[in-house]
Amino acid sequence: MFLLRNLCILKDIKELKKILGVFKMELSNRIKRLRTSPVRKLVTYSEAATKAGKKLYYLNIGQPDIETPKVFFEAIANYREPVLKYAHSAGLKELREGIQKYYERKDMNYLLDEILIVNGGSEALQFVLMSVCDEDDEILIAEPYYANYNSFFDTLKIKLNAVRTYAESGFHLPSLEEMEAKITKKTKAIMLSNPGNPTGVVYTKDEMERIAILAKKYNLYIISDEVYREFVYGDNKAISFGTYKDLEQNVIIIDSISKRYSACGARVGCVISKNKEFMKVIYKLCQSRLSVPTLEMVGATALYALPDDYLEKAKFEYGKRRNVIFQELSKMEGVTTREPEGAFYAVVKLPIKSAEEFVIWLLTDFDIDGESITLTPVEGFYSTPGVGLDEVRISYAIKEEDLIKAMKILREGLIKYRNR
Amino acid sequence: MFLLRNLCILKDIKELKKILGVFKMELSNRIKRLRTSPVRKLVTYSEAATKAGKKLYYLNIGQPDIETPKVFFEAIANYREPVLKYAHSAGLKELREGIQKYYERKDMNYLLDEILIVNGGSEALQFVLMSVCDEDDEILIAEPYYANYNSFFDTLKIKLNAVRTYAESGFHLPSLEEMEAKITKKTKAIMLSNPGNPTGVVYTKDEMERIAILAKKYNLYIISDEVYREFVYGDNKAISFGTYKDLEQNVIIIDSISKRYSACGARVGCVISKNKEFMKVIYKLCQSRLSVPTLEMVGATALYALPDDYLEKAKFEYGKRRNVIFQELSKMEGVTTREPEGAFYAVVKLPIKSAEEFVIWLLTDFDIDGESITLTPVEGFYSTPGVGLDEVRISYAIKEEDLIKAMKILREGLIKYRNR
Repeated sequence: MFLLRNLCILKDIKELKKILGVFKMELSNRIKRLRTSPVRKLVTYSEAATKAGKKLYYLNIGQPDIETPKVFFEAIANYREPVLKYAHSAGLKELREGIQKYYERKDMNYLLDEILIVNGGSEALQFVLMSVCDEDDEILIAEPYYANYNSFFDTLKIKLNAVRTYAESGFHLPSLEEMEAKITKKTKAIMLSNPGNPTGVVYTKDEMERIAILAKKYNLYIISDEVYREFVYGDNKAISFGTYKDLEQNVIIIDSISKRYSACGARVGCVISKNKEFMKVIYKLCQSRLSVPTLEMVGATALYALPDDYLEKAKFEYGKRRNVIFQELSKMEGVTTREPEGAFYAVVKLPIKSAEEFVIWLLTDFDIDGESITLTPVEGFYSTPGVGLDEVRISYAIKEEDLIKAMKILREGLIKYRNR
Repeated sequence: MFLLRNLCILKDIKELKKILGVFKMELSNRIKRLRTSPVRKLVTYSEAATKAGKKLYYLNIGQPDIETPKVFFEAIANYREPVLKYAHSAGLKELREGIQKYYERKDMNYLLDEILIVNGGSEALQFVLMSVCDEDDEILIAEPYYANYNSFFDTLKIKLNAVRTYAESGFHLPSLEEMEAKITKKTKAIMLSNPGNPTGVVYTKDEMERIAILAKKYNLYIISDEVYREFVYGDNKAISFGTYKDLEQNVIIIDSISKRYSACGARVGCVISKNKEFMKVIYKLCQSRLSVPTLEMVGATALYALPDDYLEKAKFEYGKRRNVIFQELSKMEGVTTREPEGAFYAVVKLPIKSAEEFVIWLLTDFDIDGESITLTPVEGFYSTPGVGLDEVRISYAIKEEDLIKAMKILREGLIKYRNR
């Protein structure tokens, strides 16, 4: 009876709270922080332009147009198990062995347990950040950085120690001192994309060394996104953090087949590290989502069995495209850019106030013979507010002849926009 | 100069902190909380048993042995795009339309924007919990519940208001009052799996009503995991929360092709809700990981185009298996179970102290003609410590003749174990 009366009081309090608005159906604060991807933000405008009959050259997304090797589809078509079962949470053994051999060819030796398959670089990042950072922990990163990282920073409430880099110096890293000044006791890791998305930078040995020194000195993880590893041009050389023996416990490599083998739609990536304690929790996270799609792993296994000349050819093709955009950009008045070093991106400073406005204008108010282009404003790739407003990212993942047309549209568009 | 001196002091402080251990390379607290899945925990023992030549019947995993419909593989083999591109973040339109029609046949009408494709039920859950709960927020849930939920509760630091249910009453829900007493001002949602994993319970109209009343009264989301919807037996009927018109803003449905079409390895699921504000953030999360694998969605589209009699046949097959295990369990002395109502699981109370010890013993010390079974101890499916120690989950996703042998092993194993 006493219990029952208590229960009634409890219920009344709850009723009261409901009236007072305590029991509101509301989304979480972490999700309210979530920004929209700058790449996806302008989709409405490009969809409207296409609908209106305009032909667009997509320089805004990192979607290669090089064919996915046929072996990928063939391996999947030959899959003969009658039941499509959960795969092992760590990923197919054959695929992990293939990745192991690929790394061996690059003089990096990993045990199978040091390679875990995940749903693309995206899941890799999410798992890694979750394992390394609590709320309010910090990550040292050079800005501009790949804007999709923001979704994970936002929802996990991770803060950034952003080190500013500049178009004028090809987005190379500042001095050791400048980077060190950003480190606080909350800093857990240094994160990098090398070759870099969105900037196309390839870090020199000396820059790598700066990161290594800081990681050692402050016991930081190095989260190294190396998905564009093969795509470096001219004298540039992408050094992997996997080759730093004395940093074995610090280094976490994020890798993926998306760009390497033109298979973005497969969503197959991996997390690689020699830090056993770390890999143990990544494996637990892998178990929590049961498995990565089986068939896509079967296809990916066939990709890793390809001879290296496939990658040489892809690199050669992207190299030609790089030359086209660099030559064309160099001719445009007031445009600041340096020769892109790697990946298939360049961040370019334009002689205008608002890149976003210009990008929208290209979709809504401009065309040459019914054709226009999509670009990505870089503002959203910075965490410092108000910088990069005049910069765009150009992705040169489309074919040479289209790039030439696209560059013409950019050049003439810029002139017309400025004379508006 | 002044700046430089300051920088030096700053560096010295950091050095000192390093010596004092402030800059330790440590995993996040959230990841340290992460429990191991009770299903995967005993894998070492079963692997050792298999290696030693023992044949095992796997009653521990929800991996159906019914063939994946051939149309799935055929649709994928017929995919002809030369480049495997990122799919739309929301999922393939054709697949979403297929799901829309499937729901229409069940008298639930959703717009395409109210259906988003995700990487299996696992990603659905993760996205939903992330969107609804901040750290320390609470979820009302009946225990025992699907233990994999724990990974998401753990890493997101979500607390549970667990309502206890019992084997003796077939794991049906307690009274409205008992459930209401668990609600606090931190409670954000009521979560359920119906038909239930691990218990096989199917909630009655009256039980659904209790959840509905509480959700209304306290403005709670209802997170309804309905992946076993088709698999209900006898007079039981699975009611979907999608049919509750007055709860449209509260209800979030989690669905997947894994069990319905025997395609666990495809990892294709969806989140469905009429709450626009909620779906908007789920879509942002979808964008953050770019896309779900394209080919698996192509296969899934073919599955949803299958006539409903495919599902009827699957249900009939599982129904037969249910009868087998119920008949056999009923004959075993001291075993408490009620007729399983849905899904393909039963939680059974055994006349022993430690189910975990027994399950390990079956793998290490027992066999009939070289054969034994794997079961899942249910302890890990409770959040209340120390309960369910004598319970196991039996999955009847394997074929009838194997189930009969497996039940014999359980019966004789129990006798021998108790007479040890």
